[in-house]
Amino acid sequence: MKNILDRNQNKAGEVRNLLVAKKVLMVNLISSPGAGKTTLLERTCEELNKKFRIGIIEGDITTDRDAQRLKKYNIPIVVINTEGGCHLDSHSISKVLDSFDLDDLDVLFVENVGNLICPSQFDLGETFKLAIVSTTEGDDKPGKYPMLFREAKAVLLNKIDLIPYTNFKRETFNSDLKNINGQVPLFEISCTRGNGLKEWIKWISKQILSTSSTEV
Amino acid sequence: MKNILDRNQNKAGEVRNLLVAKKVLMVNLISSPGAGKTTLLERTCEELNKKFRIGIIEGDITTDRDAQRLKKYNIPIVVINTEGGCHLDSHSISKVLDSFDLDDLDVLFVENVGNLICPSQFDLGETFKLAIVSTTEGDDKPGKYPMLFREAKAVLLNKIDLIPYTNFKRETFNSDLKNINGQVPLFEISCTRGNGLKEWIKWISKQILSTSSTEV
Repeated sequence: MKNILDRNQNKAGEVRNLLVAKKVLMVNLISSPGAGKTTLLERTCEELNKKFRIGIIEGDITTDRDAQRLKKYNIPIVVINTEGGCHLDSHSISKVLDSFDLDDLDVLFVENVGNLICPSQFDLGETFKLAIVSTTEGDDKPGKYPMLFREAKAVLLNKIDLIPYTNFKRETFNSDLKNINGQVPLFEISCTRGNGLKEWIKWISKQILSTSSTEV
Repeated sequence: MKNILDRNQNKAGEVRNLLVAKKVLMVNLISSPGAGKTTLLERTCEELNKKFRIGIIEGDITTDRDAQRLKKYNIPIVVINTEGGCHLDSHSISKVLDSFDLDDLDVLFVENVGNLICPSQFDLGETFKLAIVSTTEGDDKPGKYPMLFREAKAVLLNKIDLIPYTNFKRETFNSDLKNINGQVPLFEISCTRGNGLKEWIKWISKQILSTSSTEV
């Protein structure tokens, strides 16, 4: 296991150096299955497609369904099928980077395989990791799966429109998250209803601008 | 990886032989984080605690929160903390079996780590795997994460009370599931509202009776 992680880390360093040189922000999106990664990308593409040059890497076990949903934005998308593998690694990312014209990109979103555990242990060479968690998974996720929440540069709490129909308690969620990563920005959103997306778009735009050569 | 799986399989065989000899049904509960495994165990213990002798193994990364929720049923519970590991394996199960009096058990529920991928690849020596998936994860889970659904002896679709507030389509879910595992029994349930639990309890009771020496 240590060898695998060491080899992954070395290649991640190469990927990171390349992206810094090309001024491309790479965001590693991590969540449980069905927390809303693809829907977040849909909403984000709708808002940012005119301002920034976006690329997407879709990590999926066996299908290209998520990529199909994103085709309508006419942006470069590459699918990595892990064929049963539970996370992306830096070697698979490095290989597909050749498919993009990095000089023509500001931001590259990587949608990792739906899994709250393994993807947080593999550096892809990303600029940062982003945690998405949905209210319907329960308020105990940061406490029970701390690794991702410790590493994430920001946390998106999705499906807040469903809180009234569940036993999700904001105090439990917020208190656990604060214990694990006290300073992390938290965005409460609903990707289907639109709540909170303005704040998210503003934040991610700032991150892209601080990296890319595009001026808005 | 092959070595790890081979070693796991050998130990799983030992576990299975022991459980068969002791007439204990072992159910390996697998789902995404927050799909409702612990709540299903709560409802199941409430119904079956007087009829059968139940034991529980709680697989969790770092806390004993799920075990705490189940303490009120006064049944033997053992926690396995994987310390970052993304699934249980047969070696950890084998070790904790000593903590149970197997002659005094009819059924042993194993709540695996919340992960729709890795746990389906590790035989624990269970009698069968059970897949739980919630409607709020989306209707595309069997299609996108087929391994578990192919292996499961039954599928529980939880949180059906939330369908009206989501874009979950039964036809998509059912059609994908049928393609992957045509004959698998499907139980539509809501562990918080009680829907469908009678049918589930009837089915699992039948499974326990067919293995155990208890007569009801």
